[in-house]
Amino acid sequence: MQWIDLRSDTVTQPTPAMRQAMFDAPVGDDVYGDDPTVLKLEALAADMLGKEAALFVPSGTFGNQLALYTHCRRGDEVIAEDNSHLVWHEAGAAAVIAGAHMRTIEGEGGVMAVEAIERRIRVGDDIHEPRTGLICLENAHSNGRVMPLSAMADTAALARAYGVPVHLDGARLFNAAAHLGCEASEIARHVDSVMFCLSKGLAAPVGSILAGRADFIAQARRKRKLLGGGLRQAGVIAAPGILALTEMAARLDEDHQNARYLAEGLAKLPCIDLDPADVHINLVWFRFNAEIDASELMSALKQAGFLANPPHQGAMRLATHWQVSRADIDRLLEVMQRVLSD
Amino acid sequence: MQWIDLRSDTVTQPTPAMRQAMFDAPVGDDVYGDDPTVLKLEALAADMLGKEAALFVPSGTFGNQLALYTHCRRGDEVIAEDNSHLVWHEAGAAAVIAGAHMRTIEGEGGVMAVEAIERRIRVGDDIHEPRTGLICLENAHSNGRVMPLSAMADTAALARAYGVPVHLDGARLFNAAAHLGCEASEIARHVDSVMFCLSKGLAAPVGSILAGRADFIAQARRKRKLLGGGLRQAGVIAAPGILALTEMAARLDEDHQNARYLAEGLAKLPCIDLDPADVHINLVWFRFNAEIDASELMSALKQAGFLANPPHQGAMRLATHWQVSRADIDRLLEVMQRVLSD
Amino acid sequence: MQWIDLRSDTVTQPTPAMRQAMFDAPVGDDVYGDDPTVLKLEALAADMLGKEAALFVPSGTFGNQLALYTHCRRGDEVIAEDNSHLVWHEAGAAAVIAGAHMRTIEGEGGVMAVEAIERRIRVGDDIHEPRTGLICLENAHSNGRVMPLSAMADTAALARAYGVPVHLDGARLFNAAAHLGCEASEIARHVDSVMFCLSKGLAAPVGSILAGRADFIAQARRKRKLLGGGLRQAGVIAAPGILALTEMAARLDEDHQNARYLAEGLAKLPCIDLDPADVHINLVWFRFNAEIDASELMSALKQAGFLANPPHQGAMRLATHWQVSRADIDRLLEVMQRVLSD
Amino acid sequence: MQWIDLRSDTVTQPTPAMRQAMFDAPVGDDVYGDDPTVLKLEALAADMLGKEAALFVPSGTFGNQLALYTHCRRGDEVIAEDNSHLVWHEAGAAAVIAGAHMRTIEGEGGVMAVEAIERRIRVGDDIHEPRTGLICLENAHSNGRVMPLSAMADTAALARAYGVPVHLDGARLFNAAAHLGCEASEIARHVDSVMFCLSKGLAAPVGSILAGRADFIAQARRKRKLLGGGLRQAGVIAAPGILALTEMAARLDEDHQNARYLAEGLAKLPCIDLDPADVHINLVWFRFNAEIDASELMSALKQAGFLANPPHQGAMRLATHWQVSRADIDRLLEVMQRVLSD
Repeated sequence: MQWIDLRSDTVTQPTPAMRQAMFDAPVGDDVYGDDPTVLKLEALAADMLGKEAALFVPSGTFGNQLALYTHCRRGDEVIAEDNSHLVWHEAGAAAVIAGAHMRTIEGEGGVMAVEAIERRIRVGDDIHEPRTGLICLENAHSNGRVMPLSAMADTAALARAYGVPVHLDGARLFNAAAHLGCEASEIARHVDSVMFCLSKGLAAPVGSILAGRADFIAQARRKRKLLGGGLRQAGVIAAPGILALTEMAARLDEDHQNARYLAEGLAKLPCIDLDPADVHINLVWFRFNAEIDASELMSALKQAGFLANPPHQGAMRLATHWQVSRADIDRLLEVMQRVLSD
Repeated sequence: MQWIDLRSDTVTQPTPAMRQAMFDAPVGDDVYGDDPTVLKLEALAADMLGKEAALFVPSGTFGNQLALYTHCRRGDEVIAEDNSHLVWHEAGAAAVIAGAHMRTIEGEGGVMAVEAIERRIRVGDDIHEPRTGLICLENAHSNGRVMPLSAMADTAALARAYGVPVHLDGARLFNAAAHLGCEASEIARHVDSVMFCLSKGLAAPVGSILAGRADFIAQARRKRKLLGGGLRQAGVIAAPGILALTEMAARLDEDHQNARYLAEGLAKLPCIDLDPADVHINLVWFRFNAEIDASELMSALKQAGFLANPPHQGAMRLATHWQVSRADIDRLLEVMQRVLSD
Repeated sequence: MQWIDLRSDTVTQPTPAMRQAMFDAPVGDDVYGDDPTVLKLEALAADMLGKEAALFVPSGTFGNQLALYTHCRRGDEVIAEDNSHLVWHEAGAAAVIAGAHMRTIEGEGGVMAVEAIERRIRVGDDIHEPRTGLICLENAHSNGRVMPLSAMADTAALARAYGVPVHLDGARLFNAAAHLGCEASEIARHVDSVMFCLSKGLAAPVGSILAGRADFIAQARRKRKLLGGGLRQAGVIAAPGILALTEMAARLDEDHQNARYLAEGLAKLPCIDLDPADVHINLVWFRFNAEIDASELMSALKQAGFLANPPHQGAMRLATHWQVSRADIDRLLEVMQRVLSD
Repeated sequence: MQWIDLRSDTVTQPTPAMRQAMFDAPVGDDVYGDDPTVLKLEALAADMLGKEAALFVPSGTFGNQLALYTHCRRGDEVIAEDNSHLVWHEAGAAAVIAGAHMRTIEGEGGVMAVEAIERRIRVGDDIHEPRTGLICLENAHSNGRVMPLSAMADTAALARAYGVPVHLDGARLFNAAAHLGCEASEIARHVDSVMFCLSKGLAAPVGSILAGRADFIAQARRKRKLLGGGLRQAGVIAAPGILALTEMAARLDEDHQNARYLAEGLAKLPCIDLDPADVHINLVWFRFNAEIDASELMSALKQAGFLANPPHQGAMRLATHWQVSRADIDRLLEVMQRVLSD
């Protein structure tokens, strides 16, 4: 049986073209700098982001944490949104690897107010205070919303005024760009470093990219080795990463339209709170506004061939991606309708 | 010239009785457990806090950080109020020593809402998430306000329900108790560990106390050594610490009355925003509601024999303590009146 | 031009069968535990090592450092041989990730004397001392020599007597087994955890394995996520890893015979110090006993189609692997003969 | 009963003059830089060591670890002698606070061979390797021996050649100077930073000094605050520290003569292995060359009024200091003679 997997876009299988690319890829030992496919991917990614250099890393968490570790001295303060992936879902790594003093701010829909950031930036040289080492943004946010370019520009201007670097967790950067109708580089230009994932909606099997200035990436390369992220014939996974950028990035809008279509369907169902206008990318978050039987819902979905994560604290998330079709969504809505109307 | 020093209560000189106590103290090598004066202070402090055991440490920052380091595994999340001393004024140490993943919440007057804490406590065993290792409270808060016992009880109940320990930064614990009209132990009973300073309003020259369960303190003693806080003939500074508890704690209410008297005077002056009801202890915080000439103010104060920290971002703090008399305050108000009425 | 690459066995290209295996591999999201190929590789590896469980990790350094981080509390002492990979070539990671207090002992040919280890093991509970958290061995050692099973047994007995766990850096574990003429599990049974590389002589493009008790691996899995080593459709790189074990492990003896053949040839050349009996695996180390013109040597090698790392402090290393034939070695010896006889 | 305490020189009581100095000391808040007695001690210490600046710290371990933390970046390698205090008796702190990658070398009598150090210094910029961040020496060594100035000069020359800084654990620096018949500054001139203890043979109750270049000490001052070592009216313990330097340093030779006298007496007793020529300072180490009844020995000593640490792995240490007289030693030798002749 072929499941329709709505748990996340991390579950995407590589496309047939990606499998062929792995088969064909010229490779070398990337620790020696000898892998032509990795070098090609890094050059392509840097170019698409408008950055001087890029580095292939094993995962999004690896890329984000490497960015913190490279930007900051141990004990430096890192300002991040309270509900961001970095804070919620990276296992506390910022304190372990970078030794960062996290300073979390609850944002509005995932966006921290510029004033709230400014109030926390350390000024002067008081020995009681840590240095503000980094401001972290997330776009698209894992809550499914995209931060407008103007908000990014405002934060960037503030950061520049205080001389603090900005890192972007762009795990779904190309989704954000698709939603904004701009190039990824138009988002990335507001930040000093950016991480994005090849393995989410872009469907590559493994890997992420960290990009920034050439000297920053040179330092990150050293620290990647220390952290055990120096791979050997990594071209075999970089090859599908190239297709992720050249072929899959352009089709993300289809996932977004499917997600919006799903959201509009769900919004009409009983017991569901959801404003389709909040669905910016391929992630559909909603809440149940009445007591529902979650286990009944989950088993009905399973029986109909759908994989989904169960609701958590009253909220549920469904993801669309290249392996979810409009017909799948229609079927899903039927199942949901049936269970919620009981 | 004898300055009247309003910068902080950390500036307090030891009393003559304290100097005599240092002179007379029987001492031994405390790393061997041989210093009778340190042992006496630790027993006295544990008793006054209603805790099984207590440990003498070099400073308040040392005591707080040692508590985090003892309660938490590296990478554990520590929930703390955004404006607390731990977050603002301990140099990012939590990330360096304990390796704690800080999770900061902006409170109301320094008090975090129970719901805001609960929303952040980690439940279950998701490998994406750190463990919630500790909740930190501060009472009295360095903003000069005292957290009511009911709020402490509510937070303690929440923490117990989730099995998360609570640490209290009670740098000014005895001030809080004086304000609440209760014993220090009535505050401390709501928390697993508590740190308080002998060297602030209590006037001892050096040192703080960390108290908690016997097994916790045994572990903290090991880690105190690792951190370089194992002292030798520490009885010479523990001796004034004993007087801090037996003689000075009881007189803190006098400092509070003086602070309130100062606040009421300031509230009547032009350009000053201050509600005397917010002045719970010996710290008087106020804001200027108009542009004032800070350097003129500072030089007028200096000329009149007063030391004070200059306003910071429009806010100013004055501290009362055993070396500030009501007459000093009257003189201070005259100077302020004169400058602000120009 | 097709280089003959003698720099290391990390440069090995995947075999055609491995490329086909990548193409065909059934995959899933391994963070969800859904990748059947990764699960198959982990089960196979655990079985071949005689351990309860195994974990796929991105690199050898990652696996070693994850082992330290899982075995040790921060500040624990880790005993390791002074010339081991862990000490020399892992960028100081042990201090950063595990927070380990390294205790280095110079061994005889890479093997630490049991007495030297015993003298350093911490006994009792003195608060001045760290706990001995781990003893690390390396077999085969990166100096090209294999530690006899009896030496491993002696160290294991000592460690057990003191209750200290032992980790084996078995980056070239299957080379050691081939040299000893035993199963890998006969080596691994002496240690609590073992890491080996799929990507060295075994020719897989990316990845290593960490194996040990089930509870140890469960903890390591959590920490792998924190360190950014949780991969998604990792089956595409696990698939060649399976072939590394089922097909390539059995042919390592051929590399060893080639290495010995190369060593015997080199030993006859002028200016070279080398005892072929020291060449246990596929790494041929030798020293120049006279001043040679290194740049001339390197350029002669390059011109003849050989890649090699230049001599370092008078020592040079050549590696054999599946892409180096006996005919290649004959040609190499001719070149060396010519240059060194000048 | 007044014990004669031979366990260590850390047990020394402050002299009557020191108690008077504490009583009289002008003090201020040293975190504000206001304590005149601390400033005076720091200036005096810097001057006596020939360094630009000095910093008062709570303990010797604090000072050593602060030096590592200030000299090194996390993950840097620190070369230290295997039996030094830093390695044996600082609880693994180097890995926790500085995050140092320790590289331990067994010395001859506590002195590392220059060649052994040189072989371990990292050269070049290989991303597999940590940077060599610091070389640590200990003089006098806790084995009771003094490193000759020529050996210090040789190590300093090597370190300078490679651009690696050198730190000296001079817990008993003034003992070393007394033995060498030179000024402390003649030893300290060979190193970049030096720590010495006021609280060992110099008899001050609490505290140590870290000295070095002005910019190094400025950074160390910041990090001292982070580590909880910023004290308030620390003048009360700095005052006896001044007497330690001005009065007690000059009399250490008396302790050395007593130690040598004790050593000569012990060497004549049965069952004892000891070469009095190895007794350079106030620490007398010896081994028992036959099975002795340690508990009988300890109880005989106790009954006669002596405190001593029991033998550990066949070795025993006795310390002399200002509270141990020649007559005490004569009595001690009688007791030992009696027990060992049984």
